Amino acid sequence: MEPVFPFDLDLRRHDSGGLVHALHSQLRAAILDGRLAPGWPLPATRRVAATLGLARNTVLAAYDLLIAEGYVLPRRRAKAVVAELASRRKSVPVAAKKHELPLNPLWQRPYLSPEPPRELPARCFRLGIPEHYHFPHAVWRRLSARCLREWSRQGFSYPPTGGLPELREAIASHVAFTRAVACTAEDVLVTSGAQHAFDLLARLLVTPGETKVAVEDPGYPQTRAAFAAAGARLVPVPVDDEGLCVERLPEDVRIVAVTPSHQSPTGAVLSMRRRTALLDFARRQGAVLIEDDYDGEFRFGGRPLDALQTLDRDGRVFYVGTFSKSLFPALRKGFIVAPAWARDKLLALQYCTDGHADALSQAVLAAFIREGHLARHVRHMQPIYAERRQALLDGLRDQLGSWLEPIPSEAGLHLAARIRDPALAPLILTRARQYTPGAQSIDHYGMNPPYPPALSFGYGQIDAGDIAEALARFGQAMRG
Amino acid sequence: MEPVFPFDLDLRRHDSGGLVHALHSQLRAAILDGRLAPGWPLPATRRVAATLGLARNTVLAAYDLLIAEGYVLPRRRAKAVVAELASRRKSVPVAAKKHELPLNPLWQRPYLSPEPPRELPARCFRLGIPEHYHFPHAVWRRLSARCLREWSRQGFSYPPTGGLPELREAIASHVAFTRAVACTAEDVLVTSGAQHAFDLLARLLVTPGETKVAVEDPGYPQTRAAFAAAGARLVPVPVDDEGLCVERLPEDVRIVAVTPSHQSPTGAVLSMRRRTALLDFARRQGAVLIEDDYDGEFRFGGRPLDALQTLDRDGRVFYVGTFSKSLFPALRKGFIVAPAWARDKLLALQYCTDGHADALSQAVLAAFIREGHLARHVRHMQPIYAERRQALLDGLRDQLGSWLEPIPSEAGLHLAARIRDPALAPLILTRARQYTPGAQSIDHYGMNPPYPPALSFGYGQIDAGDIAEALARFGQAMRG
Repeated sequence: MEPVFPFDLDLRRHDSGGLVHALHSQLRAAILDGRLAPGWPLPATRRVAATLGLARNTVLAAYDLLIAEGYVLPRRRAKAVVAELASRRKSVPVAAKKHELPLNPLWQRPYLSPEPPRELPARCFRLGIPEHYHFPHAVWRRLSARCLREWSRQGFSYPPTGGLPELREAIASHVAFTRAVACTAEDVLVTSGAQHAFDLLARLLVTPGETKVAVEDPGYPQTRAAFAAAGARLVPVPVDDEGLCVERLPEDVRIVAVTPSHQSPTGAVLSMRRRTALLDFARRQGAVLIEDDYDGEFRFGGRPLDALQTLDRDGRVFYVGTFSKSLFPALRKGFIVAPAWARDKLLALQYCTDGHADALSQAVLAAFIREGHLARHVRHMQPIYAERRQALLDGLRDQLGSWLEPIPSEAGLHLAARIRDPALAPLILTRARQYTPGAQSIDHYGMNPPYPPALSFGYGQIDAGDIAEALARFGQAMRG
Repeated sequence: MEPVFPFDLDLRRHDSGGLVHALHSQLRAAILDGRLAPGWPLPATRRVAATLGLARNTVLAAYDLLIAEGYVLPRRRAKAVVAELASRRKSVPVAAKKHELPLNPLWQRPYLSPEPPRELPARCFRLGIPEHYHFPHAVWRRLSARCLREWSRQGFSYPPTGGLPELREAIASHVAFTRAVACTAEDVLVTSGAQHAFDLLARLLVTPGETKVAVEDPGYPQTRAAFAAAGARLVPVPVDDEGLCVERLPEDVRIVAVTPSHQSPTGAVLSMRRRTALLDFARRQGAVLIEDDYDGEFRFGGRPLDALQTLDRDGRVFYVGTFSKSLFPALRKGFIVAPAWARDKLLALQYCTDGHADALSQAVLAAFIREGHLARHVRHMQPIYAERRQALLDGLRDQLGSWLEPIPSEAGLHLAARIRDPALAPLILTRARQYTPGAQSIDHYGMNPPYPPALSFGYGQIDAGDIAEALARFGQAMRG
């Protein structure tokens, strides 16, 4: 097959960060020393992937880093090209010619598009969506009706930026109680879900084209997307059974986005040693930590480890929570618990960018929390999810023990398992699509695949019995 | 008996969990803040139990938790010792270290903070807020209850980026009907109000530090804020009785944000000759236009001039609408009608930045529009606002004619009037604060005040009778 680059690439896995790093650093070197001339169009990612035998995500991630650093200029409806080194600058380079339409080069990034919805059965192993059968719909309807009646007696007005005071209050006492996150209503900023929280934080903290942000690899793709959208230089950091490999953080990282309670997607818990090391890193490097506690309400181990926010001594942790898992995604409500120094800046940011969240659902949510329905619902769901999780663990042990090994985990709505024999991964992933639809290969979450192959199973929308049955059929098929 | 710990313990029962919890949390706190130094050997459990009068198991359990969390290291055949925890260092005041925290320089800009709410009477001349007395609250409640019931029968899911299909449909036919804005559901992107629309467009179109954006001066401050937040270079362009002075646009402007139906705050209508000149400018310069039609539903003149979006021949206009004026601000729903070339990019942007708007209020709004309640409400309010507007015009003519001269306007929820004698402006503004609270000086909206002095009066939340009375007292005060 004809070469895609006018020079040889050394793509042996580097300890320092694998294939994305190898590809990115060698392309950058070639741009710097002129082997790739300004204006040279980068070959299509598919072709590079095919020719070099890489995952397309790997090539996309390497291209993305080059774009974020200004070595490569994206082109609308055309291949990205190598930039004039002169035009490289701290801010994002300008691509627009006089008569082109204006366009922020950041939006050329390939992996930022919504995924097409997957065709899945109603009850399956999909990740990240909670159970609706047990939700107290009647309570929610009653509180909605009540809030609408109260609201109809008030004059119209623009709700306050940052959220309704009663909701900020309710959230503050909720997280103080459930996660020992010490905060007051003033520390809480209501957002349109966790994604909006990541976006606000990325825009507050990231200097486009400059700031390096460490993300878990594998990790939640939309967190990466939010930081990429703000012009961050993403640094993938590997994850093991103790969570993020803190000791692998490059010194020049200024922001670390992490899921300590329940790593997404492996489910690993960030160990206390790593937590303290991470806080020390932040202090040493003048970095901040973004603690994404997306489904930590549901726990199945002993007493949870302290949140980073709880351990933080000097305001370096932004704690992000969401009600998409503990209540329902359509509610579209999340929050940031911010250190004091960042509060006013976040309010100004929200004021300029979307003003405020819708007030009616904020009022309903506030009443729902204040009157104890959230705590009650979490208590009600905990044993239900625990039973499903146990069915999953039993099935993995009894039916698939020779092929899959669960990754230790204590919380959340999904559980991951390693594929013992990588050679069997393709077969197992195919069978999984057939017998446990919705379960995801870990590769799906990474910047830098392949990883030691693993599968993540959600149990938010499938019952214990169906889990057992599905895994039994899965095991039967594996045994031949 | 000599103390076993170098500090006092408070072992009164805590609600949140008994003596083990009390002992554990206080020892942990002492380790974290350094009262117990690394290597300090924990006293034997028997001795602690005896000294504090606790069961030995209680002490063992607390020690076990500390060991499990890594605060304490067990030693074979020796006392467990306090671990060396990186994060246990004395905290440093963050203020002293702020300089080293990552922060996007954009957020240092001074004019991005929310204004403190003004103390105003419930019924007054405030701008930009519609009437609530005539809103069909019962209909809204009924549709909400219905949507909640339907929703409770569906499985939970993440709503689609861009908005619910039925809402995009409903908006498309609504604007096609009311504003001759030709579009299909695919062209419509649902946003969290107009501010979110400006933010998405700014981030899509602005290359930080590069792109020049023309804004009306005086103009809506939050539109400026959204573009500033995205790193735009703002270019103020003056406004006269024909709206934006298109001939004053600098050649290198790539984006023009304009309020053609009802200039904010002067109320002027962008003349047809200026509309065509603006579209020519966009074609010539490779620029795009952002048409902000924030309150154009309410019109009092003859047939409205065509929207820029309607006149546009080659996809250079983004039409932005909101339901904050036609329905209510707390709904927090707006939309963008985007040219085809920008659709997918806007979807990707929304996917990365806040995913989607809340689905329940989208469903209610869709039903409200589809079943004709929006059109009906606008028809119902039109004569009410028209009467208020007429009372305002009459009062300005009969009571204040020697001091104020209305600026020609045909739509919306506010009306502006020039102060004939600039020398009297300070007096008139003082009187206005007293007799027409909520009315705003034009200077409040500008980037380069002073302007020919003018006052803008809102009539969304004050009745015709009160308007007449207020202006009568205003006039009396001026005469006497």
